[in-house]
Amino acid sequence: MSEPKVQLALTVGDPGGIGPEITGSLLATRRAAGADLYIIGSYAALENWLSLPICKVAHVVSYRETERLVQPDSFPLFIDTDEGKPVPRGRPSAEGGRVAGLAVEAAVKLARRGLVEGIVTGPLSKEGLALAGYPYRGHTEMLSALLDAPDCQMMMVAGRLRIVILTRDMPLRDAPAAVTTERIVTGVRVTAAALEELWGIARPRIAVAALNPHRGDGGVLGTEEADTIAPAMERLRGEGYLVEGPFPADTLFYKWEQKGYDAHVALYHDQGMIPFKLIGFEEGVNVTIGLPVVRTSVSHGTAYDIAGTGTAAAGSLGAALALAVECCLAKRKRRGTKKG
Amino acid sequence: MSEPKVQLALTVGDPGGIGPEITGSLLATRRAAGADLYIIGSYAALENWLSLPICKVAHVVSYRETERLVQPDSFPLFIDTDEGKPVPRGRPSAEGGRVAGLAVEAAVKLARRGLVEGIVTGPLSKEGLALAGYPYRGHTEMLSALLDAPDCQMMMVAGRLRIVILTRDMPLRDAPAAVTTERIVTGVRVTAAALEELWGIARPRIAVAALNPHRGDGGVLGTEEADTIAPAMERLRGEGYLVEGPFPADTLFYKWEQKGYDAHVALYHDQGMIPFKLIGFEEGVNVTIGLPVVRTSVSHGTAYDIAGTGTAAAGSLGAALALAVECCLAKRKRRGTKKG
Repeated sequence: MSEPKVQLALTVGDPGGIGPEITGSLLATRRAAGADLYIIGSYAALENWLSLPICKVAHVVSYRETERLVQPDSFPLFIDTDEGKPVPRGRPSAEGGRVAGLAVEAAVKLARRGLVEGIVTGPLSKEGLALAGYPYRGHTEMLSALLDAPDCQMMMVAGRLRIVILTRDMPLRDAPAAVTTERIVTGVRVTAAALEELWGIARPRIAVAALNPHRGDGGVLGTEEADTIAPAMERLRGEGYLVEGPFPADTLFYKWEQKGYDAHVALYHDQGMIPFKLIGFEEGVNVTIGLPVVRTSVSHGTAYDIAGTGTAAAGSLGAALALAVECCLAKRKRRGTKKG
Repeated sequence: MSEPKVQLALTVGDPGGIGPEITGSLLATRRAAGADLYIIGSYAALENWLSLPICKVAHVVSYRETERLVQPDSFPLFIDTDEGKPVPRGRPSAEGGRVAGLAVEAAVKLARRGLVEGIVTGPLSKEGLALAGYPYRGHTEMLSALLDAPDCQMMMVAGRLRIVILTRDMPLRDAPAAVTTERIVTGVRVTAAALEELWGIARPRIAVAALNPHRGDGGVLGTEEADTIAPAMERLRGEGYLVEGPFPADTLFYKWEQKGYDAHVALYHDQGMIPFKLIGFEEGVNVTIGLPVVRTSVSHGTAYDIAGTGTAAAGSLGAALALAVECCLAKRKRRGTKKG
């Protein structure tokens, strides 16, 4: 008997951005065939695609039905979060933010009810989300709140390259103080657990970046390495984690493949995103680790400037979906092993 | 009539590090044949190499003679800064710092007296320099002081990739305040002048990185882009500079070759060094721009851990020397054109 397909929620994102066309393109190329999909977003924005025989969905329901939805007999199932208000294309709007936000809410409900093992999210606009009255700074914060997972982390993944971004939504000047011993300890614990659960890596090796140039150069160029990072490393090693560093950030990613770390912890946004985009831009996936469900996301934004032009590439969405399937299967396998 | 060779000072660096062996290796492979060299450092540390016929120097003088040196009839000329005190190998020391510091002093004297057009420096230790009583934090600060060039900048070069590091020797927490409008304006002016003078680029295009994630995301993630960087860009554009940005640092270096900027201005150490080392590590050269002479340097350190093992690669020193020759020739050409 073959294993049942992975069941995933796929949110289309802001209908005013490139979400609808990359979702349509994904369906048309059958790259989504490996999963049973609940596609969630504006049906109207996808109508041109969904009228193609190859993209046809089996069922369409309103998002109001999410609470009492049962597993359908065939997939994909489309959950329409469009409330009939026109959404402007090419810019953030309250209407677009609402459609996108409702889709995330619906996906969380499916996850809570055990209908899906993972959530794949298309691009939404933080500004649109705010205009629609949502109090979250973005996807990750919204999922963290709705799924009661305050310690979840953002991990950027491209093939074997995995970079956790420990502090994100803040100015650079606030980052040094935000990198506390506690945050590093929690971040590494969540990272190690995710590597075991989602990638099946039994004893993961994790590298931590330094905050200052030349990791502080013995204190001359900063004291956080000694005051904040070293105590975190010590605690983590005491707990049995295979954690190394802090390493000067400018050499950490050089020849990363040869060093063989299962994940790298960057302390602030650009420290992790500069190397990530240089090494893995085309196939980059954003994974939220530390949630009760698998969650992957495109690594790009709404790309309002090219929305509707048909030039958007569905590569990152396809990679996000493929990675979600992989991680869900790894999670199933691990649970099977544990039971056995 | 063929053009006379470029005349360069080559400082060996700390004799306790890999400086002597990479200098010897460079001489042995004839990669230095394109220039008339004044090699400055510990003769004793290089003696094994200099006894090889292929590495033989034409003259050896003491550094005390630098003041009254006249151009020799044949090259290389060796200026010995060794004072006979044993220098420990494999660690920073006052003795090693002294030999290396005297070499930089001698090179500056040669430059001031017009005997050399450029200086190529091997690796010294900041700690050794301090132990020897020098009040400079490193090569760049020492040259800046001795050559009265307070606005000089550090530019990392690998082929066509050029990254200026605007703030360097400070903890990350101090960098945001150190990135002033004035410093950006001066940095871009010096960069543009160097691109014209040393690379013959008539109207250079210069990209400036943002300080904050997503360049501050409209102020939500930091205000320096609007408060500090934008006014600098405006002033520079008013002065006729082709300056663009500020760009989010995590996408600035992605596909940099296609974007065609002649130089990139990074605002703090790791912001520039992370992409530089990922893209150009093997052939990286550190160039000090804004000095009255050309100055290039290896992009690595003393590598005390492998000193004397014969495993050090001379690639960066060779690239530094080749780039110094190129820049000196461009400078000559430009002066010729100006006169004509």
